[in-house]
Order: sequence, then C-alpha cells, then structure tokens
Amino acid sequence: MRLHTSPASPFGRKVAVVLHETGLWPRVERRDASLSPIAPDAAVCAANPLGKIPCLELDDGSALYDSRVICEYLDGLHPGPKLFPADGPSRFAALRLQALADGMLDTAVGLRYETFLRPEPLRWTDWIAAQKLKLTRALDRLEQECEGFAQRIDIGTLAIACALGYLDFRFADDRWRDGRPRLAAFEAKIAERPSLAATRPG
Amino acid sequence: MRLHTSPASPFGRKVAVVLHETGLWPRVERRDASLSPIAPDAAVCAANPLGKIPCLELDDGSALYDSRVICEYLDGLHPGPKLFPADGPSRFAALRLQALADGMLDTAVGLRYETFLRPEPLRWTDWIAAQKLKLTRALDRLEQECEGFAQRIDIGTLAIACALGYLDFRFADDRWRDGRPRLAAFEAKIAERPSLAATRPG
Repeated sequence: MRLHTSPASPFGRKVAVVLHETGLWPRVERRDASLSPIAPDAAVCAANPLGKIPCLELDDGSALYDSRVICEYLDGLHPGPKLFPADGPSRFAALRLQALADGMLDTAVGLRYETFLRPEPLRWTDWIAAQKLKLTRALDRLEQECEGFAQRIDIGTLAIACALGYLDFRFADDRWRDGRPRLAAFEAKIAERPSLAATRPG
Repeated sequence: MRLHTSPASPFGRKVAVVLHETGLWPRVERRDASLSPIAPDAAVCAANPLGKIPCLELDDGSALYDSRVICEYLDGLHPGPKLFPADGPSRFAALRLQALADGMLDTAVGLRYETFLRPEPLRWTDWIAAQKLKLTRALDRLEQECEGFAQRIDIGTLAIACALGYLDFRFADDRWRDGRPRLAAFEAKIAERPSLAATRPG
C-alpha cells in the first residue's frame, strides 16, 4: 500500500497515528506530497480526483480516501484492539467525536487558507471571525464533555488529539488551553502516546 | 429523534434520502434551520457546536453529526437492505464513493460561498478556477467508473446522486452532463427513485 500524505496535514497525521497504533506502518510506503488547494499534485490527482491528501493506494490499483475511510479500512487489517468500536452506542460516540474533530480541522485548515494562502486584500474579516467562533464553541463543548471520553483510546479521541495538535501548530497564539483545564489535561496525557509523539507536526 | 436540516443543504438531502430509503421518516421530527457560515442558528449550535446541518438529536438528548455519521446510524435502525455494506470490499467501495461525493459537495458548497456569499471585491479567481477544476476531475473520474457502480443502490451511489443534483441546482450553467453520457444516464435513472424525486432541491 502507498500513502500520499504530508507531515503538515492534520488529516494525514490522523492516518499516521492509526498506522502507529495498529502496527501497520511496515506494510505502507509513504509518499510526501507538496500541494495546496491552488497547486495540486499530479500523482495525488491520479489516485484521488479531488487532489487531496491523505490518499491510500491499495495493491490492486484502487485508492481509498478520505482520512475516515482510510482509518476504518486500516482498522480492519490488524488483530489488535479496534479503534472503531464494532457497533452500538460506543461506535457512534467515537464516530461523532471524530466528526467533531474533523469539523474543527476543516474549520482550522480553512482559516489557514484564508489568513495565509489567500492574497491579503481578498481576506474577509467576518468570515475569519465566524470560523474562530466555531472553533471556540467546539473547544468549549470538548471541555464540558471531556470527562466522558478522556479515558478512551479510539478513533474519536485520537482525532481530537490531532485537532488540538493542529491548533498548537498553526494557531498557538489563540491559546486554546486557557480556561479549559480538563481538555488541556486530556491532551497532555494522550499526547504522550508513541503514535502521537512520533507524528507531532512542525 | 429531531433532524436539523434545510431543503437547500445537499448533505441534509443525503440524510433525507436515507430516511426515505429506510422508511424511518415517521420516527423523525424535521426542523428546517435558516443559517449561513457567518450567521449561525442557535438551536443548531446547541446540538452541534460546529453550527452545521444536518444534525440529528437523539431521544436521550445527545446529538449526532455529520451526515456520514447520521446516515450510518439510521442504517442500523431498520430491517431492510442495508445502504452501508457490512464489511469487505463492497463496504469500502461504497464508503470511498460517498467520500468522493462528499468531497465534490464540499468543493461545490465552498464555491457557492465564494461566488455568492462573499462580498464581490474579496473573491479570488485563482481559487474559483482551482475548485472548478477539482469538480471537473471528479466528474471525469465518475464518467470512467460509472459502469462499475451504476447498478448499485448504496450510500455511495445515493451520495453521488445528491452531488450531481446539487450541481444541477447551483451550477446548472456548467452543464456537467456534456461529454459524460454514462454518468448522465446513471443520474437520470437513479433520480427516478422516490427518495431522490421527493428531495430534489429548488
């Protein structure tokens, strides 16, 4: 299998974390792509017409994307404890938490494009404010919910760790830990896992 | 259960299609929200801190999002044929196709924001061109792949139908059917299903 990814991609990091947790890295060849939404990578586009990473090429020539699909696929390839609970309330608790993390990341990556990639005269302050407010709401909700998930290791909590790590990487000045001691404690503990320590961006 | 959605939301349509296909609409109260990325809806934000629709409030007070999580949850509540294949290659074929459809929709909805919501002097032509190219690549790929999935009814093909329907709704001038006869024939046939006919936007 061949993984198109990038060290700075938070969704790529989520896949890398799953590869670490499941012991599957030896079965995957890693290819780092250099791309942006306005400068796509030809090899990525050949595998994923959306031109986005992560994208996992399988040995039969087909390709899987996006990160959620790749992570669930990988979780079916190893004999260890599953990161995607099989079914019932624990499955949907994990999937909902992953969706919250992915939504935070979509927001944060979009903010990065707006405030870094887009030419300065074309930036829209109302948009930036609304996106920052969305992140604030999500972080406040995580602080409230944290005790309910802090002890779990599954795709939901690992995705939240990747989302918080991306905020540290790109939006450190926003100091997400301020006023959120439980979430900060959760992140400090889970970040010690080898899968997260080995994939920290920057 | 209570579903926060909107008639114009293509991701909301995907959930509505699943509710039709599975016969679950009688168990769901529908609430139409009026919102945009810069004007969130308070009731939606209370259930989903990202402020996005669709969002499904469950009877225990918890809430599920995004559309993928909701659709998979609903698919576990009915006795009929499953829209999410249980496992193996058919599951990942369906999930990958859903991811392609969702990625097309993220792109198309983003284009809509860029060309309609964003003040005109702040629009970025290079961004618009790159996003349109992404849709072109995805449509061309679907035309190539179409014979492989055209006979299936699952979350992947239903999601593709919703994506193509959104292009008809918001980007009719781009004439996605031109030069793509197989994809056009697939869409014409699947659009006849009651679930899609009853949820057509606009």
